[in-house]
Amino acid sequence: MTFMDRLTIVKVGGKVVEEPELLNRLLDDFNAISGYKILVHGGGKTATDLANRLGVETKMVDGRRITDLKTLEIATMVYGGLINKRVVAGLQSRNCNALGLTGADLDLIRARKRPVTDIDYGYAGDIENINSRELRILLAENVTPVIAPLTHDGAGTMLNTNADTIASRLAVELSHFYKVLLFYCFEKRGVLSNPLDDNSVIGELTEPQFLEYQEAGIISSGMIPKLYNGYQAIHNGVSEVLITNPENFCKGRGTRLVSK
Amino acid sequence: MTFMDRLTIVKVGGKVVEEPELLNRLLDDFNAISGYKILVHGGGKTATDLANRLGVETKMVDGRRITDLKTLEIATMVYGGLINKRVVAGLQSRNCNALGLTGADLDLIRARKRPVTDIDYGYAGDIENINSRELRILLAENVTPVIAPLTHDGAGTMLNTNADTIASRLAVELSHFYKVLLFYCFEKRGVLSNPLDDNSVIGELTEPQFLEYQEAGIISSGMIPKLYNGYQAIHNGVSEVLITNPENFCKGRGTRLVSK
Repeated sequence: MTFMDRLTIVKVGGKVVEEPELLNRLLDDFNAISGYKILVHGGGKTATDLANRLGVETKMVDGRRITDLKTLEIATMVYGGLINKRVVAGLQSRNCNALGLTGADLDLIRARKRPVTDIDYGYAGDIENINSRELRILLAENVTPVIAPLTHDGAGTMLNTNADTIASRLAVELSHFYKVLLFYCFEKRGVLSNPLDDNSVIGELTEPQFLEYQEAGIISSGMIPKLYNGYQAIHNGVSEVLITNPENFCKGRGTRLVSK
Repeated sequence: MTFMDRLTIVKVGGKVVEEPELLNRLLDDFNAISGYKILVHGGGKTATDLANRLGVETKMVDGRRITDLKTLEIATMVYGGLINKRVVAGLQSRNCNALGLTGADLDLIRARKRPVTDIDYGYAGDIENINSRELRILLAENVTPVIAPLTHDGAGTMLNTNADTIASRLAVELSHFYKVLLFYCFEKRGVLSNPLDDNSVIGELTEPQFLEYQEAGIISSGMIPKLYNGYQAIHNGVSEVLITNPENFCKGRGTRLVSK
């Protein structure tokens, strides 16, 4: 077995990326990570707020946004502009050489518009290809990619793509070249065995246990896609997947997904 | 004298970047440019439209936008998100390996908040430093930078910076390394000797002639900063500056600024 450099991929979402104080703490901790690193961010609440202010209705199905053309413009502005540049400028002020990217930049992530079944998700993109070569060149130049949850179809159209999925797919793709740690970072300290008790963090979680908790309704809503994506990563070459919050991710504390 | 590679910098503003049909034609022509190239874009009309929809008042002084915090957020969304990614996705669909950038990305353009005199321009940035090294690495990798009119202060804050000025300053900085052609591309075919006659394009314009036309009120409003920036470029190492429109810039037609 050959030696591989470590790459830490941190997915940040929820309030963590949208409230200045939490974001600053997160960026301090992210900046302190040694070795190669990539930050993938969300920004759904800000997008919903902007949509409300513009009188554009937000429609969600099972936690996924229906992206009509107006919603796509809002997503492109909020994810690719406002939040991405806030994170990039914040990292640059910490002497971290950040570069904001969407899937269109450098043809990094190609997707295809999700086929219409009983639900039409609109301009939602299912990932088809990740251009890891460009990312590896950037990492080798000590650049820290900051990736917004947007992809493109290769024919000139941006697409909205779930940030948890992007983080997982990047982690799997890059695990051919690095020892990849994937951290899903949000408000809670981890996956809770009792949703009402913030101290009930599950230290290690296997997939069968996750399915049991899901069945019992203990794990629900936004956590489910994170965990599905997390197990995808664990089963496909990623060394470690941790569900955690900004205070604890640098200490490696939270819920660790384990494969058996 | 050593041989230098050619670098074409195209600044696109006005309707050209905001109306899909004009933008598509522009991207076809831009894509056809051989050698290294950089696109710098504006987007002021779209920013003004979004401000109106959000009930944020747009204040201009001598063609320059007063950028309060809400306006800065709008600028970051429209320039850094919506328009930048539209251009990037459009170029990628033409197999041009575009990368969208603001001054914060890769610490490319640092600026300082314009000092308050009798006018407070708010979050407007005067360029202090251009990091040409990062741009040269990208160009050498056959990446085409697409630059939004945003800079940062190095302390975590984005700043709004005139796209004409960014194009000129980039051209001067990069003229140490390339033979630089700078094209200012907008709706008109060039500088007009009669503002009411679109066919009265001035073929060559010296700075004293420009000042005379300005004095006489023939050249006014948005054209003035373009020309000031253009002469700055011509006087500081840039090989050619052309004021033109999308139909003519690839033919080298328009108004050529000459130094004497």
